[in-house]
Parts: sequence; structure tokens; C-alpha cells
Amino acid sequence: MITVPVSLGPRSYEVRLGNFPTDLAADAIADAVGKASGVAILVDGNVSERSPRVRPLCEALAHRLPHVNVLPLAGGEACKTFAQLETTCQWLATMGYDRGAALVAIGGGAACDHTGFAAAIYMRGVDFVLCPTTLLALVDASVGGKTAVDLQAGKNLVGAFHQPRLVLGDLGFLQTLPAREQAAGMAEVVKAGLIADAPLFERLERESDALSPAALPEITAAAVRMKADVVARDERESNLRAILNFGHTLGHALEAASGFALLHGEAVSLGMIAALTLGAHRGHNDQELIARTRALLARLRLPVDAAGRFTPEVLARVEVDKKRRGGGVRFVFVPAPGRAVFEDIALADLREDVRTCLG
Amino acid sequence: MITVPVSLGPRSYEVRLGNFPTDLAADAIADAVGKASGVAILVDGNVSERSPRVRPLCEALAHRLPHVNVLPLAGGEACKTFAQLETTCQWLATMGYDRGAALVAIGGGAACDHTGFAAAIYMRGVDFVLCPTTLLALVDASVGGKTAVDLQAGKNLVGAFHQPRLVLGDLGFLQTLPAREQAAGMAEVVKAGLIADAPLFERLERESDALSPAALPEITAAAVRMKADVVARDERESNLRAILNFGHTLGHALEAASGFALLHGEAVSLGMIAALTLGAHRGHNDQELIARTRALLARLRLPVDAAGRFTPEVLARVEVDKKRRGGGVRFVFVPAPGRAVFEDIALADLREDVRTCLG
Repeated sequence: MITVPVSLGPRSYEVRLGNFPTDLAADAIADAVGKASGVAILVDGNVSERSPRVRPLCEALAHRLPHVNVLPLAGGEACKTFAQLETTCQWLATMGYDRGAALVAIGGGAACDHTGFAAAIYMRGVDFVLCPTTLLALVDASVGGKTAVDLQAGKNLVGAFHQPRLVLGDLGFLQTLPAREQAAGMAEVVKAGLIADAPLFERLERESDALSPAALPEITAAAVRMKADVVARDERESNLRAILNFGHTLGHALEAASGFALLHGEAVSLGMIAALTLGAHRGHNDQELIARTRALLARLRLPVDAAGRFTPEVLARVEVDKKRRGGGVRFVFVPAPGRAVFEDIALADLREDVRTCLG
Repeated sequence: MITVPVSLGPRSYEVRLGNFPTDLAADAIADAVGKASGVAILVDGNVSERSPRVRPLCEALAHRLPHVNVLPLAGGEACKTFAQLETTCQWLATMGYDRGAALVAIGGGAACDHTGFAAAIYMRGVDFVLCPTTLLALVDASVGGKTAVDLQAGKNLVGAFHQPRLVLGDLGFLQTLPAREQAAGMAEVVKAGLIADAPLFERLERESDALSPAALPEITAAAVRMKADVVARDERESNLRAILNFGHTLGHALEAASGFALLHGEAVSLGMIAALTLGAHRGHNDQELIARTRALLARLRLPVDAAGRFTPEVLARVEVDKKRRGGGVRFVFVPAPGRAVFEDIALADLREDVRTCLG
């Protein structure tokens, strides 16, 4: 087991990574929620609550904690709507959960975002624990306390900062993922290397052809540690934390415009290539870094052909991005692996650059 | 003008009470939102945006601040739904408001609660200013940062703690209120006196027959100051702040069961009489305090006949109250004006007491 502390003063918590026997997992969760008056387990529709990993965990929790019930969520991004959030809150109230309750999410990034936001607003805030079941959720949604649902106008436009009590990253779940989702999760790991961890990036370059099973916990932990470090220094994204948006400004727009046919990690992969392409145009990075990153992402079976994808419809989606400040986009560039810089770019200039470089 | 500071460290703000010329009000709001990238004004459907008090204020704000737009809300409690909240957030996104935006509420308690919660979650939190137009909103919703919407299962079950940058209490609005709403607002002022300000309670007893116009700002300020003081000592309601729930445990249930035909203040009036009646039964207060409070509330034209109102349907609504902890209700009693105590009562006992004392 690898433990990564997320240091946020009174809101500190741990991310634990490993293969957890059911009893160990249940003990850890029971310990984290302490004297909860009741525990609601929200299970991603893509992860069957009757699966051999989920059902025993729910039963073990019911043996340890009071008033345990399971609510299945819509699978994937479909749970990140206002309507689904209201359904969850209404269910919690009807089941009699009070402000001493705790929520537990078992699922991917969307289920984690949904559960965290429900925990942030139900009775003005209850505790929660995340059990991410995808690599993406583990390295992204589970660190930093950003919870959200989507609006028609864009992804994650409504949410709250609310830190979990514990993140239990059972890597056993990851092995049950479809290959495409496993690949997508690696996009955020590559991002971690690019913006803040050159050795991680180089290790991925060396080992990506034949990643050993033993390497996964270490690589995952490195990505989690990088994010935990950034978030500890800037919890509310006043500044530094925005480096985590590398590849996301254009990636989110692509993802939304695809109607979520593109997985988040796939969109981020394309967004990173797009950002590096604009970066070369603006003198932030050289062509070699584009070539290295393309090669790495392609070997990880992620899409890298960004050219031609940024239609006016996609670019229109950038407008309501949270990163925009007074008409401009705070864009993240990577001059070299392990280092990120910001540049505020007027939206019109960004559009022009995209047309020039990626048209 | 009377200024009441609400001291919450970095989240401190001021409640200003008085009659504000438009320019003064607009200057104060502009000053409070600082360098906002845009300002959205949310106007209570019960307060016409074309009214002689609202329209000039919106225009004056548009002269001082960038990107000013007005969104009319559904009137009264009707705006406190998930659906209305989503409409507001979607409108903010469509109008291009970013995380540097600020919201301004002009309206009653429901509009203030809605706006505060929208500000808490839009882009994970933007600034807001409240311009309460009812006495109730001024002494209750505008102090303490409790924002919320309702669920079918109960009032204020979903929300956030989010402090405004400024509360501008323009008493000119209060004079335009229907007599019934003016009366309802006084219930929270009486509550303030009962739980923490004996001189205020005694002043109300002396002057309630003929409250001079000059007395209103002072009495309002006293109630605001009491609440600000309690909130400053316990922002997140871990303990002391719960005294503010006096009259609310049963009052909220009545209000919800009436389908909001009862105004909040009317329900609180009945809830206080009910609480004092249970209090006499449990030895917390004497009959004389019930008689004094009844007389005062009746003179203020508030309903005081609580007997017979607490049907099983009403009592069933108490169950999902946020004040409930593991099957019990943390009930607030007032042994004497200016002093509040707690008693945890099992729900079954509470029901039995209500049947005995108020059946």
C-alpha cells in the first residue's frame, strides 16, 4: 500500500493506493467517517452494485456502520446533472440521513464529482469518502476537493470545493476496466509528468511499451503526489493550481462538443497536443517536445491527431470556461517536461492561433 | 445609517441599515464587489424590476460596473427549487459570467437564499451582495451566510455556507411591504429578544402598540447585531448558533405543511408559542413568559393559536429537520427573555409532548 497525504490543514486527508481485501477497505472507511449517524453508498451505474468487488464492501460497511443504504447512480457523465443531484438529495432526505451522515462514492470520476458535490450541499455539508474505480478518477477527481455537475452551457460549471475524509484507491478495480478507459486514465498521468514531474514523464517514455503491473501503483502515486502538492499550495485555485488545467481548456471544449463520445482522458490527450502546438507557435516550447509527447500518448493508445478538430462549434465552447478572466483565457504552456507557465490570451487571439496552427 | 459589522475573519462584512439614495447605494455595492468582471442582478418576482426603487439602482450599477444584467426570479419561495437554481446558473453561463463575476440580490428572504446559493456554487463560488427588501430577510436571511433551496422533503435541506460581501438594508423598501409581511418580519425580532437580548424584548413590549418610524432602524439593528454576534462565535452551527432555531423546529414543519400559505414569520410565531408551551411542560419556563410572548406577538398582528395545528402530517415533517441528530431533536428553550438552552429530545417524546400540550 502507498499512502499519499493531502495536506490541507483541518481538511487534510490521505489517498491510499493498493489492493485492498474487503475487510481492510471497510475498516479504513469506517475509521475515516468516525461516528457518522448513517452512511449512504452511491454506486456508479457503470459499476454494478452486485459486482464481486462492490457487494462485499457494502455488506462489510453495513456490519461496521449505522444506517447503510446503497443508491445506484446513472452511469458516467449522465449523473452530473442538476436533476440527478436533486434525485440524490431527495433520496438522502427521504431515507432520513441527517447532517451527521457520510456519503461513500464507488465509481469513476463522474460518480466521484456527483457524490462530492452532493456531500458539499446536502444539509449544507456532510462528510464523504471516495473509492475511485478508474485510473482517471484516482489521479484526477479524487485529489483536490473539486466537486461539480455540468450545465448545458458547459462541464463543471456548478460545484463546490469540498474535501473527502479519505480516498481509497483500490487498484483491483482498475484491472476490470475496458482497455479504452485504462488508456484514457493515462492522459492525466502524462499531464502530471509534463507540468511538474520530469522523472515521471521520462519513466513513462521508457516503460510505456511494457508497463509492468508493479509499476502502476508507483506511477499512479507519483501523479497523485504531484496533484496533492499543487493543491496543498493553492487549494482554491487562486493561482498555481491552474497549471493542472494544462490540456483542459481546449480538451474540455472538445469533450463537451463530442457529446462526451470522447472520454475525458482522450480529450485531454488531444488538448495537450493542441496546447503544445500553440506553445510552439508562441515560442514556449520546441517541436521536439511535441514529437516526444505525441509518441508517448500514441504508444499509450490515446488519440493525438488534434488538427482539424477545433471547429467554430468547438471553439465556441471555450467561451464559458471557468479559466476565462474578463474576455481572456489563462492558458497553460509547458516549456519543458516538469515545468508549466501561464499566458493570458485574448479569446480572439486564441481562435486565430487555433485556426493557424490546428485548422 | 447604522452599520453592524459581521466579524468572520477573512469573510467579514457589514450590514448597513438606513434610507439610501440611489447613488449612495450603488457606490456601496460597487465598492463591495471591487473589480468584478461582471455583475448579475437577481430581482425577486415580488419586487418589480421596474419599480421606482429597483430600476434606478440597476441603472446606477450599470454606470459603475461592467457587464450588468438583470434576471427576474420567481416570486417568494417558488424560486427556492433546484430547477430555478439551474435556470439561474444556466443564464449566468449563457450571459458569459465568469468566476470573477458578482451577484446582487434584490428581494425577500427566498431571493436572498437563492442568490447566495447560486453564488456559492456557480463556478464553485463567486461574490455576492444582498439588498433585502423585507424585514424578515434583513434580520434573518441576510446575516450568517446560510444559503439554501428546498427539497420536496423539506425546507432548506440543500445549501451552503457562503458569506456576502455586503448587506445593504434599505429601509425604504420595507415601507412598500404589505402589512402582513411587515408583521411577519417582526417574529424574528421578537425571537432575537427572547433568546439573547432581554432589553430588546422589553422595548418591544413597551412600544409595540405604537412603534415610531424612528424606532424601526434601532430595533432592526439590535436583531441584526444579536444574530451577527452569535454567528461570529459559531459560523458553521457546531453549537451556539443552534439557539437561532428557537421556534423553528416546529415552525418550519408548520410552514412546509401549509404549502407556504403561512409566511415564515407567522410559522415562527406559532413555533415560538409551541416551544414555550412545551418548555413550561418540561420545566424550562413559566406560564407568565408564554402569556407575555403571546400578548406581544398578538399585538404585532402575528398568529399565536398553536393548539390543534400540529397534526400527525405536520409532525411527520419534523423528521427530516437538519436539527435532528440520530433520532433526536436538539430543541431550543427560553427560560427567561435573553437566555436560551438546549435539550435533546427523542422524536417520539417530542410527538407525545406535542399531543399532550398542543393537541
